Amino acid sequence: MKEVDALIVGGGPAAIITAVTARQNYKDAKIAVVRPEKYVIIPCGIPYIFGTLHSVEKDKIPDEVLIKKGIDLIKDYVDDVDLEGHVATLRSGEKIKYKKLVLATGSKPSVPPIPGVDKKNIFPVTKNPDNLEAMLEVSKKAKDIVVIGGGFIGVEFADELVKNGSNVSIVELLPHLLQLSFDDEFCEMAEERLKDAGVKIFTGRKVVEIQGDDSVSAVKLDDGTVLKADMVVLATGAKPNVDLAKKIGLKIGVSGAIEVDEYLKTSHPDVFAVGDCAEKRCFFTRDPRPVMLASIATAEARVAGANLFELKVVRQIKGTVGIFATYVNGLALGAAGMIERRAKEINLDYVIGTSQTVDKHPGCLPNASKVFTKVITSKQGQYILGAQIAGGTTAGEIINLLGFAIQNNMTACELANLQIGTHPLLTPAPTVPASLSAALNAIQNIEKE
Amino acid sequence: MKEVDALIVGGGPAAIITAVTARQNYKDAKIAVVRPEKYVIIPCGIPYIFGTLHSVEKDKIPDEVLIKKGIDLIKDYVDDVDLEGHVATLRSGEKIKYKKLVLATGSKPSVPPIPGVDKKNIFPVTKNPDNLEAMLEVSKKAKDIVVIGGGFIGVEFADELVKNGSNVSIVELLPHLLQLSFDDEFCEMAEERLKDAGVKIFTGRKVVEIQGDDSVSAVKLDDGTVLKADMVVLATGAKPNVDLAKKIGLKIGVSGAIEVDEYLKTSHPDVFAVGDCAEKRCFFTRDPRPVMLASIATAEARVAGANLFELKVVRQIKGTVGIFATYVNGLALGAAGMIERRAKEINLDYVIGTSQTVDKHPGCLPNASKVFTKVITSKQGQYILGAQIAGGTTAGEIINLLGFAIQNNMTACELANLQIGTHPLLTPAPTVPASLSAALNAIQNIEKE
Repeated sequence: MKEVDALIVGGGPAAIITAVTARQNYKDAKIAVVRPEKYVIIPCGIPYIFGTLHSVEKDKIPDEVLIKKGIDLIKDYVDDVDLEGHVATLRSGEKIKYKKLVLATGSKPSVPPIPGVDKKNIFPVTKNPDNLEAMLEVSKKAKDIVVIGGGFIGVEFADELVKNGSNVSIVELLPHLLQLSFDDEFCEMAEERLKDAGVKIFTGRKVVEIQGDDSVSAVKLDDGTVLKADMVVLATGAKPNVDLAKKIGLKIGVSGAIEVDEYLKTSHPDVFAVGDCAEKRCFFTRDPRPVMLASIATAEARVAGANLFELKVVRQIKGTVGIFATYVNGLALGAAGMIERRAKEINLDYVIGTSQTVDKHPGCLPNASKVFTKVITSKQGQYILGAQIAGGTTAGEIINLLGFAIQNNMTACELANLQIGTHPLLTPAPTVPASLSAALNAIQNIEKE
Repeated sequence: MKEVDALIVGGGPAAIITAVTARQNYKDAKIAVVRPEKYVIIPCGIPYIFGTLHSVEKDKIPDEVLIKKGIDLIKDYVDDVDLEGHVATLRSGEKIKYKKLVLATGSKPSVPPIPGVDKKNIFPVTKNPDNLEAMLEVSKKAKDIVVIGGGFIGVEFADELVKNGSNVSIVELLPHLLQLSFDDEFCEMAEERLKDAGVKIFTGRKVVEIQGDDSVSAVKLDDGTVLKADMVVLATGAKPNVDLAKKIGLKIGVSGAIEVDEYLKTSHPDVFAVGDCAEKRCFFTRDPRPVMLASIATAEARVAGANLFELKVVRQIKGTVGIFATYVNGLALGAAGMIERRAKEINLDYVIGTSQTVDKHPGCLPNASKVFTKVITSKQGQYILGAQIAGGTTAGEIINLLGFAIQNNMTACELANLQIGTHPLLTPAPTVPASLSAALNAIQNIEKE
């Protein structure tokens, strides 16, 4: 029987970074990764296959990242695990003995129970290259496309698909696109950009039926609107893939994901879980939160990989701060931590700060974009709890910088005191930095109260 | 006699942000700014006047930023101050009584004692709009331009001037361009880009003579090379403008700048100094350091403005972390804190970490740039002491994020643990983030030792 030190189930970024980090920390460990896919997709790159890359394979993570580190890659399914005996059984019948097992089994698309959802040319968004290749072929010929679901994936799909000249509509149940991640004013900026790109937006609307014979021909909304469609993208979220975890008796948390501690250890001492299949807890409330992001998955993987064989207490995940970024027809948007809508929901005593600047200086330089920033601070102590940004392409790193401030438990004063670097072509002016100005405004706002 | 609460001497970013911050913190204070210039220039934008903006006025900071906040703007010189009587005398003869005085008198170009340096069409880089307008006119017709000095300003001038089709050379005394701010490998990347742009580089060379009759005609180097020149830019650094401070008896520090404490107070309790004229102390060694950056000036101004009439101990400058960014022919470069060359000079026990990634993912996306990052950590405790980056336009904000880590006294482990957000079009892949990967490498490197 094959014997390894670490057996990692899954092939995505969580699996890869657990394996690579384990190799960095434990030079001589025997590490194996088991996954069925012919190749692995960069998950956040999926929408960009359809309007920019025009190829599924261009969005792959090369297997060499594992192979060149001496990690064994096995293309198969893990069908069962004997936790007591530390033995995994593959679909091929092969058995592998392990010391530590890591589940990085990811997520599965949530398919809503809409009548007609099983017709041809209706595609849930999966990470499977075969499915994506089929989807790409259909998208190339599609004249009328309806995207159901207005979160990140739905918005990015709509923004990309419209570039091919298709007639694209997006339908969202909530009053705004991106509503779970941003406050209204930022959602509205994204909606504006998507409209400018030619996408038809139907918010506050439910899909009641998908029509057609064998293939989809139209999508019917709850107000009677019928949208012609020869392709439908189901961007209706995902749920943790815990099939194997359940089968082998690991504890599942209240959110439906695998329960893990700060080191990503499951209810069994020799089994870890990382990424979309592992439960996350809110950085602030410690409640379970359904955040599924490759960037969180890799952060967890770096912690799990370091702690796999010996506890490095300095490496822990102390609650998940969701940090998101997206790009809609030339507008970059980012959010980190708490948004105002959620602050209200959980009855948080908060103060807002906002700022507006330009991402180059002087603002008349070519390709300069306006940058809007909003921070949410606690009223007591004025800790930075959340930040949102809309601007040019540097907004994706500015939101990371504000995410750092949240994770470092910085106050608005501490943030306002920070020294920064600036450059005419790369950043806003030193007089109105995007990273500090909203915090300065929050300080003023609390003094007014 | 006119009476004000705060009198600010100077017109640049340090003066403006002191005034604006004072207004935010002290709503009813009477604030006046005195400066002679017809308008104020964005200092870091100066090189971009010459190859991108083609206009001096486009690089101005509008006076409205003061006026709309109810700040009195007086276009004059402050010739003398009676510190005991709290009275300033302007060149017009007007006297102004103040409660607090702020010196934001900036810097003056250092003109090297080269024979012939007084000839026509030789321009030190000043912030005076009249001088810049004269310089712009000459640059439009110049065929052969020599830039003396290979720091940020020199490199940016060369990169801009060559865009107009002029034959541009740059001469630097040290072995590399940008050598005071970057380690060799980053300097070499900048040199490569500048060469690609068509600039001729002469490093390790001293200018011994500037030739010509009335006007400059050539520049002679110490190896006998003679460079034809109908225009010379003197980018040979600057020194604090402390003329007024000396005249009125304020204490001058060993570096030649006005001595200040953590609140930017001078040796007189009612006088503050901010920006290039105020002494800076190294964040690490606390030694005086000649850093002149608008971003540091504004950070100081935000602290001085908040503390002007009442001490807010939460707002201090606890040492200056120089954070720089520049852009050379498509390559953005940034540095924060310690570089390796200086770490060696001061006999620091350090560990290096490096990483290489791409600023989009997958890396085949249009306009993706490679990103190189280097961090310097202390060996004991592995605190992040310095960072350097070269990459695409987001590098300017990534270096700010690493500058945050330095100012928050973060260790490599803490940095490696941080959660980030990623997006295909905005950031590197979550598997190889520019902000964390060099820290992870530093952790590995110390374990190897």
